[in-house]
Amino acid sequence: MHSVSMDEKIEPRILKGFRDFLPERELQRRAIQRTLEETFRSFGFVPIDTPVLEYADVLLGKGGGETDKQVYQFNDRGKRDVAMRFDLTVPFARFMAMHQNELSLPFKRYHIAKAWRGENTQRGRYREFIQCDFDIVGTESVYADLEVMLLMVSVFEAVGTCGITIRFSDRGVFNGFLDRAGLASRSVDILRAVDKLGKIGKGAVMEILTGFTSQDQADRILEFIEPDGDFTEVIARMEELSGGASPGTVRLRTIYGALSEIESPCSFVLDPSITRGLDYYTGTVYETFLDALPDIGSVCSGGRYDDLASLYTSTHIPGVGASVGLDRLMAAMEELGLLGLSTAPAQVIILSIDDSAIPRCHRLAAGLRSSGISAEVSFEKRKPVQLFTAAEKRGIPFALICDGAAATEETVTIRELSTRESRSGLSLDDCIRYIRSRQS
Amino acid sequence: MHSVSMDEKIEPRILKGFRDFLPERELQRRAIQRTLEETFRSFGFVPIDTPVLEYADVLLGKGGGETDKQVYQFNDRGKRDVAMRFDLTVPFARFMAMHQNELSLPFKRYHIAKAWRGENTQRGRYREFIQCDFDIVGTESVYADLEVMLLMVSVFEAVGTCGITIRFSDRGVFNGFLDRAGLASRSVDILRAVDKLGKIGKGAVMEILTGFTSQDQADRILEFIEPDGDFTEVIARMEELSGGASPGTVRLRTIYGALSEIESPCSFVLDPSITRGLDYYTGTVYETFLDALPDIGSVCSGGRYDDLASLYTSTHIPGVGASVGLDRLMAAMEELGLLGLSTAPAQVIILSIDDSAIPRCHRLAAGLRSSGISAEVSFEKRKPVQLFTAAEKRGIPFALICDGAAATEETVTIRELSTRESRSGLSLDDCIRYIRSRQS
Repeated sequence: MHSVSMDEKIEPRILKGFRDFLPERELQRRAIQRTLEETFRSFGFVPIDTPVLEYADVLLGKGGGETDKQVYQFNDRGKRDVAMRFDLTVPFARFMAMHQNELSLPFKRYHIAKAWRGENTQRGRYREFIQCDFDIVGTESVYADLEVMLLMVSVFEAVGTCGITIRFSDRGVFNGFLDRAGLASRSVDILRAVDKLGKIGKGAVMEILTGFTSQDQADRILEFIEPDGDFTEVIARMEELSGGASPGTVRLRTIYGALSEIESPCSFVLDPSITRGLDYYTGTVYETFLDALPDIGSVCSGGRYDDLASLYTSTHIPGVGASVGLDRLMAAMEELGLLGLSTAPAQVIILSIDDSAIPRCHRLAAGLRSSGISAEVSFEKRKPVQLFTAAEKRGIPFALICDGAAATEETVTIRELSTRESRSGLSLDDCIRYIRSRQS
Repeated sequence: MHSVSMDEKIEPRILKGFRDFLPERELQRRAIQRTLEETFRSFGFVPIDTPVLEYADVLLGKGGGETDKQVYQFNDRGKRDVAMRFDLTVPFARFMAMHQNELSLPFKRYHIAKAWRGENTQRGRYREFIQCDFDIVGTESVYADLEVMLLMVSVFEAVGTCGITIRFSDRGVFNGFLDRAGLASRSVDILRAVDKLGKIGKGAVMEILTGFTSQDQADRILEFIEPDGDFTEVIARMEELSGGASPGTVRLRTIYGALSEIESPCSFVLDPSITRGLDYYTGTVYETFLDALPDIGSVCSGGRYDDLASLYTSTHIPGVGASVGLDRLMAAMEELGLLGLSTAPAQVIILSIDDSAIPRCHRLAAGLRSSGISAEVSFEKRKPVQLFTAAEKRGIPFALICDGAAATEETVTIRELSTRESRSGLSLDDCIRYIRSRQS
């Protein structure tokens, strides 16, 4: 740190689109991350990590594209053209190209980490955000697609957001339909328009489409993406409009058949309007919606891709995966009242009226901690009643009092701060039992 | 992702000083982080998070200094002068200046996160590394200094590196000594030289010192930093050479007295050569050494500072804290054989010979997971013996076999892969009991 004279303070401030996390919020965010991580692990997924900074050409390709303007890119002091990662997929592709021989395939990995995009913050987006990605690579099995869907369900069960609907489709089938309708050359524009259906509605999509297709073609596109009926009827209509059964429709039938046999607390809806826009998916695509909050959009999206690492290697690495947006998930959980409110720094505060008892307080704290009870030793020189009030305000449920006179004997007084009830003459073991009995 | 034609692959590579973490290593790193985090929490410390990117003047001050050449600094697309954090202390100072009114003091926080420095990688240093910082701010109590030391001990106990020595001293006492010896004006050079004692030895330090002091002054400096004797003798000599008892020597006596009363598995040595070089500490300073690996240097260092956020605010925020270098700690744990070797992606792999049994496999997997047993469903079309071998190689201890014929009945076969022993006709509950019995 550098010193400056009193009169030239630097204004403490943070960049637009970046955030500080205070303890209450950070505890909640870490609890969610841990739940996601434990769910991923329970399915046999393992974590990796990659650098935040990479060579710009590795992250952006030689050409560059639409995302580039949002990327934090610069020359480092060694004049290397570098960039901060803007997602976890591109670094994973580079990782697989480099380490494919060190890993056994199929490889199931998760990665929970920050990424950065210089987005327009007016849309409520952040420039620094945490992504939670999970993928199965090195397999074309449709049962990997199924497993990713089941893991998505388990993630939402684990965080307590019951009532979810996974809307899924197949990008290959959509491409087959476009081919057959003679619209393949306009697929980029059509995908852009179709991706907006949920946000802008049917009429507005129709208007965009008729800007570059005939009315008849636009009708057929809307007929494809908005069919009526249950799974059997929708898949039949998709087959009809895309030229019959194809690998994509077989995948959809297999997935739906297996899902029907597995008891699941959530709904699976075949929805041909799900295409994931301009993303790199080539097969199954999915989006996840919370039934209680449909307007917040998809909280977990993903799909199957043909070849993850084609930018770097000629080894063909197919895979399937999905990504949870932690900010959107946290916002949803907050709205649903699912964020834990217990943010007590510790379960017990140990007070010593006299400094000479502080070593004994630390011995007691160590005893509580070894029984799994978090404890802090107060060293503030304030009246007990003030310390009780301050501790209660911080959410600490119990105070343990070690006064100077009692320093020679091995008993203490415990006080439940909410009820103001005290018990004296307790041993450490008595305290532990008492705390457990009051918390169960 | 952007597509390129087959013949212009981009070489997959990472920047010098940056690292990929493959699952085995990342699992170990995350396990250590989790242990640290749980230890911090057990003492009532709470987590915060701050942005990776900040305004450059906020991180570096208006002047800039020695670290600046190592900082990743650039102009973002909005022409803001920004930098990636190079430690967690400066962002914490800025955080406290901004949020002091939202927090109750004393405030005990930890922060485990990445930081970046463009260090010379030839010294085995990394340009991207994880810091684990913990601090108590808003108090001048010497018992906060004590608590940080006790937490350091608990951290090393928790990760299993028994046999540690915390060497501590007081920077204020050292400054008092320099004043009295008429050397205050050379304190920067002297601190630089003294900080090298452990690395280069007494003779080399003497040589540096006599470059700008008299032989007599250099002798006195070495006499101060290398005294003989136990705590009582060393503190007496420090008092003598620094002009008598001072707030610093009183702090040292109080800390040592309290430590002597608390049973601790580690050694505490008053060592006046500990000054933490040019760091911003003003009071107690500490370094931690592993008795089994003294040569790797301090694995956790810290101290007391007068005024954390003076760069940003005139509010006086004193505090005390320390930082664990995760890379050095992991390297030490590896050398001591303390890194867990169990890196199995899951405890059970469920095999289905026939695809029609896959839904049933997923139901079984869900049952195992809800009992806390991680399970993956294999969808590979290979012979069971090949799947057994592959699973065993990945460290998975058990296979559960669901063949097509058995799909209608609710029993399965379990196989322990290491012993090749199988048991058939088991229910899910039988399997859970069997797995638990074999693992205990």
